[in-house]
Amino acid sequence: MVEAPARLSSTEMSRTLVTDLYELNMAASYLRRGMTARATFSLFVRNLPKGWGFLVACGLERCLEFLEELRFEDEDLEYLGRELGFPDEDLEAFSRFRFTGRVRAIPEGRIFFAEEPILEVAAPLPEAQLVETYLLNQVTYQTAVASKAARCRLAAPEASLVDFSLRRVHGSEAGLGVARATAMVGFTGTSNVEAARLLGLRATGTMAHSYVEAFPSEIEAFRAFARDFRDRVVLLVDTYDTEGGVRNAISVARAEGEHRVVAIRLDSGDLAVLATKARAMLDEAGLTDVQIFASGGLDEHALAALTAGGAPIDAYGVGTKVGVAADSPALDSVYKLVEYDGRAVSKLSTAKVTLPGPKQVWRRAGMAGDVIGLASEDGPGDAEPLLVEVLRGGRRNMADGLSEARLRFDAELAVLPGDLRSLAPEPHVVERTPALEQLAAEVSEEIRRRELG
Amino acid sequence: MVEAPARLSSTEMSRTLVTDLYELNMAASYLRRGMTARATFSLFVRNLPKGWGFLVACGLERCLEFLEELRFEDEDLEYLGRELGFPDEDLEAFSRFRFTGRVRAIPEGRIFFAEEPILEVAAPLPEAQLVETYLLNQVTYQTAVASKAARCRLAAPEASLVDFSLRRVHGSEAGLGVARATAMVGFTGTSNVEAARLLGLRATGTMAHSYVEAFPSEIEAFRAFARDFRDRVVLLVDTYDTEGGVRNAISVARAEGEHRVVAIRLDSGDLAVLATKARAMLDEAGLTDVQIFASGGLDEHALAALTAGGAPIDAYGVGTKVGVAADSPALDSVYKLVEYDGRAVSKLSTAKVTLPGPKQVWRRAGMAGDVIGLASEDGPGDAEPLLVEVLRGGRRNMADGLSEARLRFDAELAVLPGDLRSLAPEPHVVERTPALEQLAAEVSEEIRRRELG
Repeated sequence: MVEAPARLSSTEMSRTLVTDLYELNMAASYLRRGMTARATFSLFVRNLPKGWGFLVACGLERCLEFLEELRFEDEDLEYLGRELGFPDEDLEAFSRFRFTGRVRAIPEGRIFFAEEPILEVAAPLPEAQLVETYLLNQVTYQTAVASKAARCRLAAPEASLVDFSLRRVHGSEAGLGVARATAMVGFTGTSNVEAARLLGLRATGTMAHSYVEAFPSEIEAFRAFARDFRDRVVLLVDTYDTEGGVRNAISVARAEGEHRVVAIRLDSGDLAVLATKARAMLDEAGLTDVQIFASGGLDEHALAALTAGGAPIDAYGVGTKVGVAADSPALDSVYKLVEYDGRAVSKLSTAKVTLPGPKQVWRRAGMAGDVIGLASEDGPGDAEPLLVEVLRGGRRNMADGLSEARLRFDAELAVLPGDLRSLAPEPHVVERTPALEQLAAEVSEEIRRRELG
Repeated sequence: MVEAPARLSSTEMSRTLVTDLYELNMAASYLRRGMTARATFSLFVRNLPKGWGFLVACGLERCLEFLEELRFEDEDLEYLGRELGFPDEDLEAFSRFRFTGRVRAIPEGRIFFAEEPILEVAAPLPEAQLVETYLLNQVTYQTAVASKAARCRLAAPEASLVDFSLRRVHGSEAGLGVARATAMVGFTGTSNVEAARLLGLRATGTMAHSYVEAFPSEIEAFRAFARDFRDRVVLLVDTYDTEGGVRNAISVARAEGEHRVVAIRLDSGDLAVLATKARAMLDEAGLTDVQIFASGGLDEHALAALTAGGAPIDAYGVGTKVGVAADSPALDSVYKLVEYDGRAVSKLSTAKVTLPGPKQVWRRAGMAGDVIGLASEDGPGDAEPLLVEVLRGGRRNMADGLSEARLRFDAELAVLPGDLRSLAPEPHVVERTPALEQLAAEVSEEIRRRELG
C-alpha cells in the first residue's frame, strides 16, 4: 500500500487486524478442531453510567460495514505468519475467512437500557468470536456519546445545539463518530468540516479569540469579519471585556453595509449573567433578531442550569464534555457467548454472571417498561420487539442510515415518559421473562454440577 | 476515491478538512487582506487533571506528519466552494496552501507541567491558524493517555503492564494512539494486533471466557488451548470458579506434553486474595515459574493498592480506564496566539488570561523546578531548555520516533523526584521569569488602555 499524500495514516490500517490477539488465537483454535457450529453472542451494557437513565443505540452502521467487508489481505496474513507464528494451516483458513452470519440489533437512534442486548451475532463460532473487538470498539464510544448528547437535548429542549468537540476528542475517526452521534440525537450542526462533508451535515463556525487579537483592535476585527462573511456573521465578544465586546458588536451590526450580524458569541464567564446583560443591550439597540450563542465547557448539567434560570441563549456550542462523554468515556459494554451448538451457556465468575441464550427485548406501549426474554418466546402481547434482523448471510438486508436513525430518535423522544426526562432518573423497569430466569437457573445448576461437583 | 475493501472508511477521510470550520473562515479572511505576517501560537494545558502531578508529552509525531503533508485536494476545494460558499479567490489561495513554518516542541516522552507550552508554531498567520484543530486533537488525547499510563508505571513499578484497551477506546485510530502512548511509557505489549504490526510492538493475548464456555468443560478447553499454543499458554481461570480453575490449570501444567503453561489469568473478584491463594496452590504443585496475570477494570489506584498489599501478581492487562484516561478523558488544552507581526498579544476574558510572547521552558537539574520565560531570554544558568526545534521551513529536521521517546521517558522516570512519584502529589514548582511577567503586565495594560479606556 502506498500512502496517498494528505490522507490519514490510517489509510494503511488493516481493519481486519484491529482486534485483540486473543480473538485470532481462539478463532484459529476453533478452526483447527472443526468447532464451527453456530454460536450466538450478545453485546450489552452491564450497568448504566451513574445518573444516566437510558442509552441511545449508536455505532451499528460501522459494525455492519465491517462485517460485510471483513477479509484478510495478503499483508495481514504475512504478518500473522512471520511475526506472530501462526502456521500455514491457520493462514490458509484465515485467507478464506468471511463473515457469513446473521445480526439482530436494536436500530440506531432507539433508546435502550442496561442488560438489554443492543446486538446479537449468530454465526459459526470462529466468525462470531473474531468480530468481538471491533464491534465493541465502535458501539461503545458512539453509544456513550449519543446518550450524553441526548441528555443535552433534554436539558435544553428549545435551544439549537451544535457539536464543537473535534479539538479534544480521541482522534479524527472519533471526531467523525461524535459528529454522527450528536447529529443522530438532533444536534443541528458541527464545527467538523470533514464530518459535515462525509455525512451531509451543516458545518458551522464563528471566529477564535486569536482573530480578534490579530487585528489592531476588536472593532477592526469585527468590521473585517462582517465584510468577509456577510450573511453568517457571528461575533465573539469576550476576548477583552464582554460588555465592551457587545458594544462593538452593536456598532458593527448597526453600521451601513451588506452584512448582517446573526449572533454574538459568549465563551467565558457567568453565561447567564452575561447573556442577560447582552440581550438587554441588543434589544435596547433595536437588534432583537441578533441571537446569543454560548459555548465553553458545557454539558447537560450546565445547560439545565442555564435553561432553568431562563438565560436568553438561543444556541449552544457543546464541545469536549459531550465529545468524550466526560463522566462516562467508556460504557460497561461486553460481548458474551450465550449459546453454542444449540447449548445455552453462561459464566459464573464473581459478580459477573451472564444470562444464557439468544434474546429478545420487548417494550410495552408508552415506554411503560421493557421485558428481556428468550428470542424463541412470543413476548407480551402489547409489546414491541426491539431487536430486528439487520444482516443475514453476511449481507445487510436493509438500507438504513443517519436520516432514519434521527427520525427514530425523534420518535423515541416524543414518547419518553416524564421520569426518564430527568437528568437523574430512577432506574427504569426492565423485567425478565420466567423462561429466561428458568434457563439461567438451569444453566447455572448444570455448570455447578459439572465444574464444582 | 474508491474505497479499498477491508480498509477503514477513513481511507476516504481528507485530513486537511479534519478541522473546525472557523479555522478556514479565519484563514480565508487573513489571506484576503494580506495578513500573512509571522504569528506564534502556544499549545499548552491550562490545568492538570485533579490529582495528577505531571503530564507526558505525546502526539507530536502525528502533528509533524500532518504539517508536512498538509494540502487541499481537488475534492476538498470542490466541497468548500459548492457547499460552504467559499469564493474562487479563497479556493485558489487554499490550493496553493502549504505549511512553511517552524515548530518548537517538548519532545515526546518528556514530562511537563501546566502552563508550559508543549509546542509552539511560528508561521504566516493563516498557516499557523489553520492547523490548530488537528494539533489539539492529536496532542490532547495522546498526552492524556500517556500520562495516565505513566501513573500506572509508578503504581506498579515491578510488574509488566500490557495494553488491553482496544475494545472500549474511541475508535480504531484511538486504539493505535493508545497502544503507542502506553508503549512510550514502558508498557511491554498490546492486545491490539494492528497497532503491534504498525508500530513494531509485542502483540499479546490469552483467551476469553467464551473459549472456556464453548467446550464441554473447562479442563477440556485448557487442554485444547495448551495443545494449540504450546509455548504461550496462558489459562483464564475464573470462568466458573477461580479455585477450581487454578486446579484445572495445575493439572494441565503438570500433564505430559509439548506445552508449557506460562501463566494463569485472573479477571474478576478480589484479585489480591485470589492471587495469593493461586500462588500458594501453584507453588505447592511445584509450579513456581507459572506467573500470575491479572486484569479487569484496573487503573493506577487499583494497581497501587495491589502493589502495597504485596499481591503476588507478575503482570497486568490494563484496559479501558487507561485507554480512555477515564478520570480525565480530555485535558484542558488550548492553542493560543501569543505574538503577531512582532507584537505580543494576549486575551483578557474572565479567568482565562493568557501569557503573551513566544516562550521557552527551562528545567533545573534534578527536576528541581521549571521556569517559563520568553524564548528570547537566556534562562537560568544550570537549567535545560525543554522546547527544541523539530520542524523548520515545513520539514521535520530530525528523525525521532517511538524508540527515542521511550528512552526519553525512561530517563525522566529515573530522575523523577520522590514527591512527583506519588499518585496525589503537591503541585510542582513552575516559576515565571521577571521578563515574562513584565511583558504580560505591559500587554494587559496596553489592551486595557486601548479597548476599555
